[in-house]
Amino acid sequence: MSTLLKSVSALKPLFDRVLVQRLKQEARTASGIYLPGTEKEKLMQAKVIATGPGYVNNNGDLIPTSVKQGEEVLIPGFGGQSIKVGEEEFLLFRDSEILAKVSKE
Amino acid sequence: MSTLLKSVSALKPLFDRVLVQRLKQEARTASGIYLPGTEKEKLMQAKVIATGPGYVNNNGDLIPTSVKQGEEVLIPGFGGQSIKVGEEEFLLFRDSEILAKVSKE
Amino acid sequence: MSTLLKSVSALKPLFDRVLVQRLKQEARTASGIYLPGTEKEKLMQAKVIATGPGYVNNNGDLIPTSVKQGEEVLIPGFGGQSIKVGEEEFLLFRDSEILAKVSKE
Amino acid sequence: MSTLLKSVSALKPLFDRVLVQRLKQEARTASGIYLPGTEKEKLMQAKVIATGPGYVNNNGDLIPTSVKQGEEVLIPGFGGQSIKVGEEEFLLFRDSEILAKVSKE
Amino acid sequence: MSTLLKSVSALKPLFDRVLVQRLKQEARTASGIYLPGTEKEKLMQAKVIATGPGYVNNNGDLIPTSVKQGEEVLIPGFGGQSIKVGEEEFLLFRDSEILAKVSKE
Amino acid sequence: MSTLLKSVSALKPLFDRVLVQRLKQEARTASGIYLPGTEKEKLMQAKVIATGPGYVNNNGDLIPTSVKQGEEVLIPGFGGQSIKVGEEEFLLFRDSEILAKVSKE
Amino acid sequence: MSTLLKSVSALKPLFDRVLVQRLKQEARTASGIYLPGTEKEKLMQAKVIATGPGYVNNNGDLIPTSVKQGEEVLIPGFGGQSIKVGEEEFLLFRDSEILAKVSKE
Repeated sequence: MSTLLKSVSALKPLFDRVLVQRLKQEARTASGIYLPGTEKEKLMQAKVIATGPGYVNNNGDLIPTSVKQGEEVLIPGFGGQSIKVGEEEFLLFRDSEILAKVSKE
Repeated sequence: MSTLLKSVSALKPLFDRVLVQRLKQEARTASGIYLPGTEKEKLMQAKVIATGPGYVNNNGDLIPTSVKQGEEVLIPGFGGQSIKVGEEEFLLFRDSEILAKVSKE
Repeated sequence: MSTLLKSVSALKPLFDRVLVQRLKQEARTASGIYLPGTEKEKLMQAKVIATGPGYVNNNGDLIPTSVKQGEEVLIPGFGGQSIKVGEEEFLLFRDSEILAKVSKE
Repeated sequence: MSTLLKSVSALKPLFDRVLVQRLKQEARTASGIYLPGTEKEKLMQAKVIATGPGYVNNNGDLIPTSVKQGEEVLIPGFGGQSIKVGEEEFLLFRDSEILAKVSKE
Repeated sequence: MSTLLKSVSALKPLFDRVLVQRLKQEARTASGIYLPGTEKEKLMQAKVIATGPGYVNNNGDLIPTSVKQGEEVLIPGFGGQSIKVGEEEFLLFRDSEILAKVSKE
Repeated sequence: MSTLLKSVSALKPLFDRVLVQRLKQEARTASGIYLPGTEKEKLMQAKVIATGPGYVNNNGDLIPTSVKQGEEVLIPGFGGQSIKVGEEEFLLFRDSEILAKVSKE
Repeated sequence: MSTLLKSVSALKPLFDRVLVQRLKQEARTASGIYLPGTEKEKLMQAKVIATGPGYVNNNGDLIPTSVKQGEEVLIPGFGGQSIKVGEEEFLLFRDSEILAKVSKE
């Protein structure tokens, strides 16, 4: 689905939603072979672009998202709402759908 | 589905429903090419026309909608109840279905 | 489904149910063209004939219906239990299924 | 499904169940035409024969049924557990499935 | 499904389960005609053989079963876990699935 | 599914799970006829090998399993996770799926 | 699904997720016969690589995972999100999906 947005920074996710962008696979394998378009398997790693405020639980407490802007995360292979800003594709997940954080080593 | 309404301002959404109108895609692409009807992909951006009072949670508290009248939002590609007022089409979503707010830059 | 009722006023909806009657489309379009039976698209507008007392939430509080007798409302295109009283057709919805109120302008 | 019961009064519905018997359509239309068996459309009106004690909500409170023995009610066109006592057919609904009461006029 | 049990009294239902045995249809109709095997329609009446202790609700209270051992009840036409003890068939239902009690007249 | 376990006693079920082993049908019927493999109908009786600690309810209380190690129980004809230890087959059920206890007579 | 991760230790599961690696079946049966690739049935045993912090229940309490890093567990035959790190495959389950712990004997 497309938008007329000039910059993704205009997007403020609602509730416990998390906006991410999938990391791009280098067009070469570890051993340097150039991967034409079709072989580039979608990576599960993504960067958090923006998060919503969180969700309100039964007691009325606001539970913030567990991932923060700028963090690297692992996203499921399927699901997520696709959002295009210009030629860039972003994905919107619920916080509870994000699988793991990827710590810097 | 059609109505005999003369103006959309007569509509007062109930509960946590949000009435929006999809922004219209300029009939030209960024590079100026005129898009005949079929190529105009539906935009995910919409304007909030009116909101309901919100929903009552288990504790009996009224939780207002997170989006307000006049704000620009991102709506899902599918879903929403279509409502026609004259030749204009509007959509009715639940507040929790609205994906994000679009801030003015 | 049919009833032997002589008047709809005998019907007292239970719980949070709302009894409505769909407004009738004038057999002419705005521009005066007479619409033979088939073209008369069902309107989403309806009048509230009667409401139930409301529903009891988890805390045991009675939550009255949000729409009142005599108000004009917007109903979904589908759903609702059809009830015939003589030649007249009425529809029974849950309060939470009613989309919006239509204010007098 | 059949029973060996001699009288329906032996049946004590459990929980919030309501035992009803559908009113019988006069074998004539309003205008006096005799309706052979097939044309007798099932009526939505029924009489309450017996009710259960009600259901216990999350707080442990007993919520009695909203309809009482002897009242006339409107039942849905479908659903309900059919019970035969001799040649008579009765139906068992949950209280929340009963659509409306029919007041005497 | 079969068991090696010698007597059904060894069975102690768990939670809110109720063990019943369907009453047997006399092999004759009311008017005395002998019903060969196939015409014997399954009766909805059954006798309660044993009950579990009940279920624990959200507040931690034990809610005993509403039917007691020795009572006659009405069971649904379908469902229930079939249990064979020797040549006898028994059925296991949840308490909430039992439709009604049948009082002695 | 297979494991490399040497003994089932290494298995500690989690939450409210119950590990059972189905009793073996004597290869002869009551009347002594030898049942070749295919006729040996699966028995519903089983022995409890080990149980988990129980489950935590909404109030945070630990609710222990209702069946204990060493007890004989009745299990449903279907369901349960099959686990092989050497040539022996065991089954893992949730406590709430176990139908009844079988008391020693 | 693939990742560019160099080491699985970078993965920090979220909520009550548990990252495991399936034990590898020796390429020989107990009796020493070499199992070509196809006969190596997937084992149900796995090692816990990392766990999330746990989940927050209705009362806002954090309930930690019941399995800990380094423990051996029994996993279901199906389900789990597959994650590849280099040539190694890992699986991500919810804590409540893990069947049992395998104690050292």
